[in-house]
Parts: sequence; C-alpha cells; structure tokens
Amino acid sequence: MKEKEILLRLVEAEIGRLPLDDTEPQGLYAPIRYILEDGGKRIRPLLCLMGADVYGGEPEKALPAAVAVEVFHNFTLLHDDIMDKAELRRGRPAVHLKWGESGAILSGDAMLILAYRILQNGTPVYGAGKLPGLLEVFNRAAMEVCQGQQYDMDFETCDRPVTRDEYIGMIRLKTSVLLAAALEMGAVVGGASDAERRSLYDFGVNLGLAFQIQDDLLDTYGDAETFGKKIGGDIAAGKKTFLHIAAMEKASAPQRDAILAPGDIGEKLPRVRAVYDALGVREAAETAIAEYFGLALEALRRAHPQAGRLAVLEEYAYSLMKRNK
Amino acid sequence: MKEKEILLRLVEAEIGRLPLDDTEPQGLYAPIRYILEDGGKRIRPLLCLMGADVYGGEPEKALPAAVAVEVFHNFTLLHDDIMDKAELRRGRPAVHLKWGESGAILSGDAMLILAYRILQNGTPVYGAGKLPGLLEVFNRAAMEVCQGQQYDMDFETCDRPVTRDEYIGMIRLKTSVLLAAALEMGAVVGGASDAERRSLYDFGVNLGLAFQIQDDLLDTYGDAETFGKKIGGDIAAGKKTFLHIAAMEKASAPQRDAILAPGDIGEKLPRVRAVYDALGVREAAETAIAEYFGLALEALRRAHPQAGRLAVLEEYAYSLMKRNK
Repeated sequence: MKEKEILLRLVEAEIGRLPLDDTEPQGLYAPIRYILEDGGKRIRPLLCLMGADVYGGEPEKALPAAVAVEVFHNFTLLHDDIMDKAELRRGRPAVHLKWGESGAILSGDAMLILAYRILQNGTPVYGAGKLPGLLEVFNRAAMEVCQGQQYDMDFETCDRPVTRDEYIGMIRLKTSVLLAAALEMGAVVGGASDAERRSLYDFGVNLGLAFQIQDDLLDTYGDAETFGKKIGGDIAAGKKTFLHIAAMEKASAPQRDAILAPGDIGEKLPRVRAVYDALGVREAAETAIAEYFGLALEALRRAHPQAGRLAVLEEYAYSLMKRNK
Repeated sequence: MKEKEILLRLVEAEIGRLPLDDTEPQGLYAPIRYILEDGGKRIRPLLCLMGADVYGGEPEKALPAAVAVEVFHNFTLLHDDIMDKAELRRGRPAVHLKWGESGAILSGDAMLILAYRILQNGTPVYGAGKLPGLLEVFNRAAMEVCQGQQYDMDFETCDRPVTRDEYIGMIRLKTSVLLAAALEMGAVVGGASDAERRSLYDFGVNLGLAFQIQDDLLDTYGDAETFGKKIGGDIAAGKKTFLHIAAMEKASAPQRDAILAPGDIGEKLPRVRAVYDALGVREAAETAIAEYFGLALEALRRAHPQAGRLAVLEEYAYSLMKRNK
C-alpha cells in the first residue's frame, strides 16, 4: 500500500470515531455526519499528516489537528452552500435542502465548535505545549477563510472589473491558507523550526493557488466524463474565475459582450470558450498554474534539509496537479 | 462608583479595542461592530470578571475570557435572528436585514472564530497554563448552546406537548450554561479549586434558569413601559415558553383551544392571559423562579469559604432578578 493510502485510512478511521451517531439532538449531529461521511479527497488532513511526517513526527500524533482542519473545511462548504444556494454537494442534496436553512446554519456552527473541540481534545496526543501554536495557526487561517469568502461575495456583486491580483488575493484567503495551515499544523506537531514551518506554509499557499486555478480551468476545459460534474458551471453562473478575469483584461468590446451575454449553457459555453481561445486564456491559466506550482516546489525544497523526507509530499503535490477531476 | 460599574467600563473598553474598524473586508467586520457596539447588559462578561474577583484574581486578567464569551453570545444572537427571522435586535434592524442573509451567516462565523482568537490572544494576560482549562469550559458550553438552540427549534415544530423537564433542559443548554461557563472561566483565571469552580458553575446554571423563566414571565406579565419591548410577543408567536407549557399541563380542552387559537395580539394576549390566570400559571412561574434562584444562592455560598468575597456576585444576582426589563 502506498504511503498516501495508509494515511488516508488513518484519517477516515479517526473521522469515523467522532461521536456523532448517538449524540442528541440528532437534528444537530445528523447533518454533520452526512457532510463528513461522503468525504471528498481529504486533501487537508493528508497534508497535515504528511507535514508531521516530514519532521519525523509520527503522523498519528497529528491526527486530531488533521481532522479538526477537515471538519472546519466541511463546515465552510456547508455554510457556503447556503450562501451560494447550491443544490448539490458531492453529488448529493446539500444540507440546507435536506434539513432546511436554519438547521444547516446551526449544524455548521456546531461543526466549527467541534473542530476546536477536536483540536483541544488532541492535547494528550500531541502534548499540551503544542496547543497554543496549533491554535494560533488554525485561528488565523479560519479567520482568513472568512475574509476570502467575503471578498468572493463582494467580487460577484461589484460592478467594476476585478483585477487578477485581487482574484489571487481572494483565492489565497479562501482556499490556499487552509491547505497551508494544515501543513504548518503538521509541522508544529512534527517539531519543525519556525523557518521550516514558514517554508511548508509557503508550499501550501502556492500549491493552493495552482490547485484553484486548475479548478477554474477544469470547469471550462475539463473532460466531462472524468471531471465528474458538468463542464461550464462557472460560465453558466457568470462566475468571475481566473479565466474570466484574464479574458476581460484583454477582450475587445464585442468580446466582452460575448462573455457577458446570458444564454443557456449549451449555447453560452462554446460561445465564451471561443472568446477564451481567441484571447489565449487557457494558456494564461496553464502558465499561472505552472508558475505557482513551481513556487510551491521551491518552497518545499526549503522546508527540510533532507530532500528524502519531502518525497511523500512532493509526490502527493504532483498527483494533485495531474488530476483531471 | 459601584464595583459593577467599574467592571462594566473595563468590558466596554476592551470590546472597543477589538480591531474591527479598519480591518478589511469591511463587509465582514462592520456587522460584528454593529451588533457588539449596542451592547445589552453585558451580563456574561460581568459574571466572568466577578468570578475571577471572588478568588482574588485581578478582574483585568479575566478580560479576554470575558470578552470572548460576550462575542460568542452576540454571535448566537446574530445567527438566531436569521433562524427566527427576527427583524429587530435591541431596537435596531437585525444584521441579516441590514447586510443580507449571506453576510449575516458569514459575519457570525467570523465572530465565533474571533471569540476563540480573543481567548487565545489572552494567553499572556492570564498565563499559558490557563488556556487548556479555559478552552475546555468554553468549548463544552459553546456546543451545548447549539444543542439548546436545536432543541428549541425541535420543540417549536413538534406536535406532541413539551414537558416542563424538557423545557428546563432546553433553556439550561440554550441560556444557562453560557452564564455558568462565564463564571467558571473567571474562576479558572482566579485560581479556584475544582470544587469551587463547580459550585460557581452551578450558581450560574440555576441563576440562568431563574433568569430565563423570569424573561418568559416578563414577556407576558411585564409592564410595557419599563419592559422596553412589546408585551405578549411570545403569546403572539405561539412560543412554547414556561408559562405556555405549565398552562397546557393543566388546561381543559376548551382552555387548550383558547391558548392555541390564533388571533391578533390585542385580542389573543388578554384571552390567553385569562386562561393563564385561571390556571395559576403566573404563580407557578414565580415559584420556579424563586426555587432556582434559591438553588443559585445555595451554590454561590459553597463557592468560596469567605462569604465576603461573594458579596459583589450576590448583589449582582439580586439585581438581575429585581429587573423589570
């Protein structure tokens, strides 16, 4: 079994041990079980365990931190789905459709508290001395994720064009810092130095940027069968993605109109994609992904004097960028 | 100046120092400032400071814990107002009406994280050794408040009658445990023993129960002018308060109908109040308040060997029960 598979089993087992099944009231805990059990890729907890492993900390010792980050991440998905009025999450009805909006708000709140509880209850596992450092990393990232979500909402409703820098700043907060925090928390458990922690954090931030821009790219240019969800969702919703912003920077007036005009997805997707193609937007995205991924690998190499210790993380980072879904 | 006034100034000053004014994005932080600046009674932070004072801890040392609890409490109000579709909070438009529901959900999330950040940032004030204990008390209470809110929603929609025990269990979670936790966190900062902490916690739980039942009573029997809000709100909304539940336990079939039949507030309030009067519901509530307040004072006397140290808390507890708003 590959290293990643072993760590994934640890994560799933630990999530399975959360006391959600028979804790009352079930109206509060059933939605939490529901969103956690259909897991997604578990990227953040895996990064956390790998972060600990780099510095020779047993990955098991980072499990509470890893699961706390995963619970937090799923909390953000739950609340984001309410805000976005999303109907599906990982192919199943979103929590707010199944349990109502009030139930979804409250279960999300309980998840956020649960994340802190898991972190605190893990003290015997990673030692009380590590708690303040873990909390500091977690708290800062948690607040930044909220800032990122606010910028995302602000951008969607503002009239002026969003710049590429603003977009990068937004996805840095909304997506990247939590990947980076997961890694740094692993490094804290593993006993990394401050400089090593920072390098691993930088690796996470840049990996996250590459990952999010790739997500934007796949949504427009992915293969429908392997991507697993409908292509063109962002274009249909008029989302201000990296591709949209890069296109609007260079578009002529008629091209802008072609991007902005409404239409059903069957007509709008090829129309907008044709403009993107004409403007070289796909290549711009691929260049940005390659650049951020390059920065990520550079930061990773600084994260530990022994290159060998970084192998699992590096391989996992490559696998994330080779994904087609 | 009375002791309580001095502590209140400390609390207001500390809340005023929260970095909310110029932190971006303002869409996230302006609602937090808005709900915190129009403060209410600041009961929880005052109890926290008084709890520290009982054990000779300087109240200033408990300020981060006190403010964390107050920020958490206001977070629950913000999200509860969305769930209840409440339009006013302390006489002003609720956050979700002013900033929209998505903004209110997200700002509430950020407040919850802010509460943890304040608690963590206070480490230099109360000493790192106190953090795990404070977090444990805070986390348990925070989760219980969510459980209480879930039971409250469950009770409002369930068809069967809610028992008095179930109601007490619900308000214990929804209201009392946070008062108790505020006191216990103060005791932790003050250096109380485990037994003293528990006694002060019990004082808070029982005080909270007395306070909430008094709230139910004032909503139906209070004086409109001094109460500061409309009398009969609970009856108009058909809320399952202590009075409602006590009445339904004893009511005849026609009396039940009289309680449950809809109607505008001008007609429904006197009609339901007449049934309550006939069933002695007011007296039942007053008895319950007196009993819980008595239990609170008993627990308070166990909380410290020196009776004199408890004077400020005892006086404040009496002032809370003598309120008419």
